[in-house]
Amino acid sequence: MKPFLLSVLSLLLLSGSVFSQNKVEKWDVFELTLDGPSSGNPFIGTTFSAQFSNGDKVYEQEGYYDGNGVYKIRFMPDREGTWTYVTSSNKKELDSNKGSFECSKPSEKNHGPVRVRADYHFQYEDGTPFYPFGTTIYEWPFQDARTKNQTIETLRSSPFNKARFLAVPPYKERYVEGPLKITVFPFEGTSRNNWDFSRFNPEYFKNLDESVRQLRELGIEADLILFRPYDKGKWGFDMAGQEVNRRFARYMVARYAAFRNIWWSLANENSFIKNMDDKDWDELFQLVQEKDPYHHLRSIHNADRIYDYTKPWVSHVSYQYYNVVKAPYPTAILRDIYKKPIVNDEINYEGDVESRWGQLSGEELTFRFWNALIGGGYATHGESYKSSPWISIGGRLIGSSPDRIAFLRKIVETGPTTGLEPIDHFYENNMAGKAGEYYLVYFGKDKLNKWDFVLPRRELAAGVKFKVDVIDTWNMTITPLNKVFEVVPVPGNRYKFMDKNKSAIKLPAKPYMALRIRKVGDGKKVQSDGRHELE
Amino acid sequence: MKPFLLSVLSLLLLSGSVFSQNKVEKWDVFELTLDGPSSGNPFIGTTFSAQFSNGDKVYEQEGYYDGNGVYKIRFMPDREGTWTYVTSSNKKELDSNKGSFECSKPSEKNHGPVRVRADYHFQYEDGTPFYPFGTTIYEWPFQDARTKNQTIETLRSSPFNKARFLAVPPYKERYVEGPLKITVFPFEGTSRNNWDFSRFNPEYFKNLDESVRQLRELGIEADLILFRPYDKGKWGFDMAGQEVNRRFARYMVARYAAFRNIWWSLANENSFIKNMDDKDWDELFQLVQEKDPYHHLRSIHNADRIYDYTKPWVSHVSYQYYNVVKAPYPTAILRDIYKKPIVNDEINYEGDVESRWGQLSGEELTFRFWNALIGGGYATHGESYKSSPWISIGGRLIGSSPDRIAFLRKIVETGPTTGLEPIDHFYENNMAGKAGEYYLVYFGKDKLNKWDFVLPRRELAAGVKFKVDVIDTWNMTITPLNKVFEVVPVPGNRYKFMDKNKSAIKLPAKPYMALRIRKVGDGKKVQSDGRHELE
Repeated sequence: MKPFLLSVLSLLLLSGSVFSQNKVEKWDVFELTLDGPSSGNPFIGTTFSAQFSNGDKVYEQEGYYDGNGVYKIRFMPDREGTWTYVTSSNKKELDSNKGSFECSKPSEKNHGPVRVRADYHFQYEDGTPFYPFGTTIYEWPFQDARTKNQTIETLRSSPFNKARFLAVPPYKERYVEGPLKITVFPFEGTSRNNWDFSRFNPEYFKNLDESVRQLRELGIEADLILFRPYDKGKWGFDMAGQEVNRRFARYMVARYAAFRNIWWSLANENSFIKNMDDKDWDELFQLVQEKDPYHHLRSIHNADRIYDYTKPWVSHVSYQYYNVVKAPYPTAILRDIYKKPIVNDEINYEGDVESRWGQLSGEELTFRFWNALIGGGYATHGESYKSSPWISIGGRLIGSSPDRIAFLRKIVETGPTTGLEPIDHFYENNMAGKAGEYYLVYFGKDKLNKWDFVLPRRELAAGVKFKVDVIDTWNMTITPLNKVFEVVPVPGNRYKFMDKNKSAIKLPAKPYMALRIRKVGDGKKVQSDGRHELE
Repeated sequence: MKPFLLSVLSLLLLSGSVFSQNKVEKWDVFELTLDGPSSGNPFIGTTFSAQFSNGDKVYEQEGYYDGNGVYKIRFMPDREGTWTYVTSSNKKELDSNKGSFECSKPSEKNHGPVRVRADYHFQYEDGTPFYPFGTTIYEWPFQDARTKNQTIETLRSSPFNKARFLAVPPYKERYVEGPLKITVFPFEGTSRNNWDFSRFNPEYFKNLDESVRQLRELGIEADLILFRPYDKGKWGFDMAGQEVNRRFARYMVARYAAFRNIWWSLANENSFIKNMDDKDWDELFQLVQEKDPYHHLRSIHNADRIYDYTKPWVSHVSYQYYNVVKAPYPTAILRDIYKKPIVNDEINYEGDVESRWGQLSGEELTFRFWNALIGGGYATHGESYKSSPWISIGGRLIGSSPDRIAFLRKIVETGPTTGLEPIDHFYENNMAGKAGEYYLVYFGKDKLNKWDFVLPRRELAAGVKFKVDVIDTWNMTITPLNKVFEVVPVPGNRYKFMDKNKSAIKLPAKPYMALRIRKVGDGKKVQSDGRHELE
């Protein structure tokens, strides 16, 4: 592996034994640097934290050892004004260090960390909606500088606002020899023969710091995967045992929680880590929950044994279940089961590799994305062409789905601010939006030549007027129809409204078509019949 | 309501102050009858139970007050040989009553209670597989004798081996006036003005006893629904409060647990009972779990808020979610989420009523049944024609789906004894059976004119030979093909085997077709490539 980029902050460290900023913008990282003992094992037995206060806001933030006698505390202030802090430690040099700093208002593109909104959606802490359109670049932090820069440039012009990647690389031949050989590992040591699992290697994490920071500067959420099973016994990082796992998780939280763009992904394909069971994951979840003062989003990405996402420390579902996205309605079912946002974080990848998880056409990946969104959830992209293994290394995108995902994202972002909600979803299959006002109807692979203008009764009133856009989701065209539809109840049917002239909409008998139906005029509200939704 | 049938046992009661059988067959009901105090309120504050022993088997079974100074204990012996018992009570007359009886071997049609088998399926306690093909007759115990007899006769010649029904009738006009007027209620009193929720009405439950017993004699599991929301404030049985609910659940368990065909359905559409939340249901589940010595199956039937079926006291999923059965794969997803048997207990009903839950064609209901089974789960029938409201009152069946369900049941019962397991189910959509040996491929509404003989690699070996039946699931025909298929790996594809002659199977381009593919000869086992299922 190439030498890591030196971060600006590590350069600043040279200036003295205590360093901190005087000023930081809201939701940026305030970093306090102290010199302390380097003897013994600073990773074990040294307690170090600070209490940060601003009015009635009080946070406890753990610090971390950064090597060479340097200790740091990173803090994310979430209120403007003066923050004061005081450190606590069982080491004299690190204890009772006091100070203060000013927190200024966030800059234009800084909306704070992402939170769950209205059970099934997300928003930034400042209230701006966040619709995750993620991508997958598992190993991007471990590539050479050229590839990393290319990844950054690709992301900059992509539709993606969330990136899933590994905190610890998978064991692969290319990281053991050749130009990408990794020489700096998360633990001290150079090979399985001499790991010291009681000592982290700060140099390793400085690279990861930079990766998280670069994504933050792009406005991309870092869906950081703490544990992974891809070791095949070669390095043994996934078999180090729960005590080491706990220490690792705690170190990661101390080091990264102050980055506003962090999402904690406890693991990728956790059930493939054979010496860990769900109780171990419960424990690590709770540790992260306890130690992260800012309560970043927390999930875990399943393999064959699905973790119980109803558990209270899980903020959202990070799913791998390809059949869920073969139609819109399974995602809607998952919403009702988990009562949390559903992110289909692995839906197979566009590509041409021999493994069937990486053989989707651009059409199929786009189709699955639409299904996830019409089901009231979200999805994550990945691309695995032999000539461009984006999901592994990043670099460039050559597939056809990203443009279509950008097109979909634009539709979603100009839709209801409440996100796409499945409409009348115990009976309907392919419709989301905001009942009464906005309907996105997706036909998937069905090749319809017409669609009767009939909508579920919910929230409708006789006389409400609509305009319609015909959307070709593959060719990325939006064709407004020069016509106004006005709804009346369907005679003899309690559940449906239709256009008063029984109009139908012509469709081109092609797959991947959709309709956007938006209210343009009010009608006369009819009394609800008070029936339960399931009737 | 018509006078209840007197049960044989209540007649026998006339013979003395203590009555019990000398002999009972395994898994039948041993009933001990004692005279005790009738003063005060025997339903409150009187403890009464017995310990039953046979070798190292020891059970504690609560008794119940049956009115007129009569106390009973019902016990289900599950081991042949001599059982002894001794009662305990805080009332002298009921305490320290001892005795014994002989338990003989079960008669031919008695297989014991139903248990969960291999996570996703069921079997009787004697090991006989049980494949639930349920139906819904919510109010059948509350009908006149003629209708009840008709229901029994209909069930006798039906494919149904499980019946869902209510322990307490819904409030409906027809039960308040006219020939079906209910005069005997679960609680003492005659109307909302004078219920005594501290006293049950034993007469009411004698009728229910008979209903459970009649189903048992037919070999039909009684999926007995303890609570229901269908009161609309008129009787108030669903608003009596958690203390009354607890007492009711405990009384029901004391009274019915000894019937081997009992399944506890804690509620129908529990979230529509507005003054109860999931914690109340948790409590009632745990009460039933604690008090039922035989651990009958326990579930709850959801409405809009889905109960967390992962909770440990839930034995299986009793779902209402129509979209789950619009394709096979959502049921397979539910298996992976809940890790329990999935019974789609409400999939809409065949019928012609105005409510959309009762407007399915026979074709559609049959289609949904097949989907549930191919997804590795089960389904429950219901019929709601205006001229014959089977789901409410029972009586006669006039729909077209029961014959098709009988046809499906026969296929399932002659299939793998391990039940239908979804095959390669993270990628496949429409295939269940036993990988390598038996495949049921269901095409649903797709109108194929041919199907290429290609199977997932899992458990296959080059040279394995198969014979194929073409099944018309609607017309109920099974057409064996006069041909043997022999599989070889598909070149360049890690995941598939095909017929060595690249044969395809002709299909009639109609909906609702299926294939049954059964191994008739072994091949040469090829080494598994050891890849994870998700790859």
